[in-house]
Amino acid sequence: MTNTQVTLVQIDNYGPWTVTPEPRREADLQTLQSRLYADISQFVGNRDGYTFFTRFDNMVAVTNGLDLEDHALLQESVGNRYPVTLSLGVATGTSPVQALADATELVQEAGSAQDKNRRECLEGRVVEDAHQADDDIQIAHFDVVDATGNYTDELNAFDTFIEIEQGYAELMRHMRYAHDSLSFFVGGDNIIVVCPDLGEAEYEEAIHHVQEAVDVELQVGVGRGKSAHDAGFAAKHALETCRADGTRVELEW
Amino acid sequence: MTNTQVTLVQIDNYGPWTVTPEPRREADLQTLQSRLYADISQFVGNRDGYTFFTRFDNMVAVTNGLDLEDHALLQESVGNRYPVTLSLGVATGTSPVQALADATELVQEAGSAQDKNRRECLEGRVVEDAHQADDDIQIAHFDVVDATGNYTDELNAFDTFIEIEQGYAELMRHMRYAHDSLSFFVGGDNIIVVCPDLGEAEYEEAIHHVQEAVDVELQVGVGRGKSAHDAGFAAKHALETCRADGTRVELEW
Amino acid sequence: MTNTQVTLVQIDNYGPWTVTPEPRREADLQTLQSRLYADISQFVGNRDGYTFFTRFDNMVAVTNGLDLEDHALLQESVGNRYPVTLSLGVATGTSPVQALADATELVQEAGSAQDKNRRECLEGRVVEDAHQADDDIQIAHFDVVDATGNYTDELNAFDTFIEIEQGYAELMRHMRYAHDSLSFFVGGDNIIVVCPDLGEAEYEEAIHHVQEAVDVELQVGVGRGKSAHDAGFAAKHALETCRADGTRVELEW
Amino acid sequence: MTNTQVTLVQIDNYGPWTVTPEPRREADLQTLQSRLYADISQFVGNRDGYTFFTRFDNMVAVTNGLDLEDHALLQESVGNRYPVTLSLGVATGTSPVQALADATELVQEAGSAQDKNRRECLEGRVVEDAHQADDDIQIAHFDVVDATGNYTDELNAFDTFIEIEQGYAELMRHMRYAHDSLSFFVGGDNIIVVCPDLGEAEYEEAIHHVQEAVDVELQVGVGRGKSAHDAGFAAKHALETCRADGTRVELEW
Repeated sequence: MTNTQVTLVQIDNYGPWTVTPEPRREADLQTLQSRLYADISQFVGNRDGYTFFTRFDNMVAVTNGLDLEDHALLQESVGNRYPVTLSLGVATGTSPVQALADATELVQEAGSAQDKNRRECLEGRVVEDAHQADDDIQIAHFDVVDATGNYTDELNAFDTFIEIEQGYAELMRHMRYAHDSLSFFVGGDNIIVVCPDLGEAEYEEAIHHVQEAVDVELQVGVGRGKSAHDAGFAAKHALETCRADGTRVELEW
Repeated sequence: MTNTQVTLVQIDNYGPWTVTPEPRREADLQTLQSRLYADISQFVGNRDGYTFFTRFDNMVAVTNGLDLEDHALLQESVGNRYPVTLSLGVATGTSPVQALADATELVQEAGSAQDKNRRECLEGRVVEDAHQADDDIQIAHFDVVDATGNYTDELNAFDTFIEIEQGYAELMRHMRYAHDSLSFFVGGDNIIVVCPDLGEAEYEEAIHHVQEAVDVELQVGVGRGKSAHDAGFAAKHALETCRADGTRVELEW
Repeated sequence: MTNTQVTLVQIDNYGPWTVTPEPRREADLQTLQSRLYADISQFVGNRDGYTFFTRFDNMVAVTNGLDLEDHALLQESVGNRYPVTLSLGVATGTSPVQALADATELVQEAGSAQDKNRRECLEGRVVEDAHQADDDIQIAHFDVVDATGNYTDELNAFDTFIEIEQGYAELMRHMRYAHDSLSFFVGGDNIIVVCPDLGEAEYEEAIHHVQEAVDVELQVGVGRGKSAHDAGFAAKHALETCRADGTRVELEW
Repeated sequence: MTNTQVTLVQIDNYGPWTVTPEPRREADLQTLQSRLYADISQFVGNRDGYTFFTRFDNMVAVTNGLDLEDHALLQESVGNRYPVTLSLGVATGTSPVQALADATELVQEAGSAQDKNRRECLEGRVVEDAHQADDDIQIAHFDVVDATGNYTDELNAFDTFIEIEQGYAELMRHMRYAHDSLSFFVGGDNIIVVCPDLGEAEYEEAIHHVQEAVDVELQVGVGRGKSAHDAGFAAKHALETCRADGTRVELEW
């Protein structure tokens, strides 16, 4: 049984800020967003969590192992170094989608994403140390079979990107509605999926579905662990096995 | 007539590097990628260009105003500060898609994205100073009508993300095949599209198409300029007019 | 009794790297160094340690609360994201100077700072959890009395800088040889000193000494704690008392 | 005849900000300062200028080649991405010290460094394109003879640091009062000095002076150029000659 701890990271009142007093330079916004993401990724990552950039103004993190004090410290540190602040909602559950839904609700109840009086709210609860288990997290790391040979070295860069995006859009929707999973594009041709307790059959099915729907061929390595890093690292190793052996699904636990 | 200068930025041999000698920590890869993107965005942006993160290992920039010396300096500076290097292809044309296709071809001809002997190639040509014109670039800045009220404050964060992604996936494909344009998600509910010489009717049509296909309601501001920043800034102002007046398409030139 | 845990951070073979194959752009080296320092400062700092930039190629950190696994993770993360690697020596003791001397020796024994075969050495031992105490660290935070009024707003920026530097050079030498303490300039007119168990008289004496020697007037707040952050935070509060009350030495414990 | 363009970069009202509403975490301040410096170093550096961190809240840059628009863009970009803002004073002259004095005066006249109403002032004038010459800048790059063998690999890290600092403190004062030059420690055992039109004798004298005063043995390469990068790069090459040939002063122009 998985027990995923999910944190929703929402920049407070970001939309209005980007156009006040008039629209800010796009390159500066892009720099700000991606560096803020990088900092959160480091903070969470060196405590063995994973952070996904998602929409940048709303990011999603898998934070098993981080307590509320860690979350508060992240808020304080960002508040000290950026012109924007963060609100955080934290929730846990066997279904990653439900956990994120609960985390979202906590933030929404504290105020709108464009409420200028909502600042640095921190709501929710974490998996206590005593309850952490070695199979709390299940992560699947997908990539596109021979993306370099089939796409990157063959098509123009945008058409390659379209193919990858169509594969991702299809997978994210399917994994969410069929399997209660959260899928995140992480660059290149890689998609990391935070899953409940799924087995080989579900992954076979998902790969088949994407192939049928948009003709993109995926492979996947799956791992479990106490933290996102542990599970994700096992998944990466499993994916290396797919690459080496030409298999499509490898579970490593 | 537009004359877009497009640069393809490709990290050399990145895929193999990420798993050598064994898979690297995902949080570090995410940090590396997003900071590298941020640095390129600053370098290009403070010369009035735009950079899009795209797949992170392959980024696309609109670089009118930057010459090949600027490109070489970017390569040198990244090579001095990162454990990876960049290859760059630069091309120009009235069609942004064709320009990117040409730029891609230059990089592909220099070697595969996973060729360990291809390092820091720089190929192509730029729009010379004397030929730059005030309507070289046309940029459309789309966003989702009341995304905060309809999605962010209502749905869970992943379902909001799915809606935005479906809108983006549909728009990117449509604008590419129907209008020779390059569409990039830039965070939040914003999509920036690099266009050839399109008029109001084409934007109306695209908004209608996305609404029909995936039921996501878009609005768009469009601008022109000598540089991506000039065109994009006008587009942002035009989009502010949409927001203020409730219109769907605003051209500002 | 203090028990300071000191980490020497040394970039491996950095000098030769900066001029291979020929001298690298100075601005890139400066960017690399200061960002690397910033990253280490965040990593150590969000575990309640302090890092000082010192010479940039050799940095000093107070790391009570970080174990060897944390140190190894820092090495791995830097190795994944920078073109250079770090060697670390860790030692503890009642005298900060002796602890740093021991930490230095561990790194020196592993190889020269310009030995191209010494990479990512990690040597030493930490204060175990069970032995940590609330007075392990004593930190003194000095600044210059009314630096803005006396210097910044009055002299040219370099002459102000010379005054601050002379004050620092004198204090660092005095505190090291008279009081076994490590002094670090941290920007503005601020100097943070990592001390053994000193009392009010020693700080009075040090302030008097610097005034006599180079005519720079200092004030100081001193704090104690389990971590550098705890001790340093108390010291900052104590320094605020100096500023408010016009006193020269404030101890807060 | 040199014609150095110097920019004073002063963070607006920074001191008060660091303790409002109460003292901020030191590690965050250190991170903020060093990243802000890194960003300015990149912006100025990829336009062939040099930036020195100095006191971090007051930085000094050699900006020949940057016009006032570039300076304004730097202010805007920092204002968009940091919680603090910058004021800039720019001045030119044959004496680097006088140029910095003039630049400082412009900023001081606009308001105190702790005036909360002075924000983003930009004052001064630049060397126009038409007046730029290939010997506008003279830069001397000093380092300590065999610092690794004599200090880093031999003494503890703090005692090495003290030696380097004493050498720097002595050189900075001497070069300022005897030779109207601005000296900046740039990490390791390196000091970069921005000079007026000095000859070999003055450098011999300075090296002799430092050796006599504090027993630190320096060597120096000197270069000239249209920009800080050009002059500094020649100086680095000249210093390589010192290292290779065992000479103490090398001029390269």
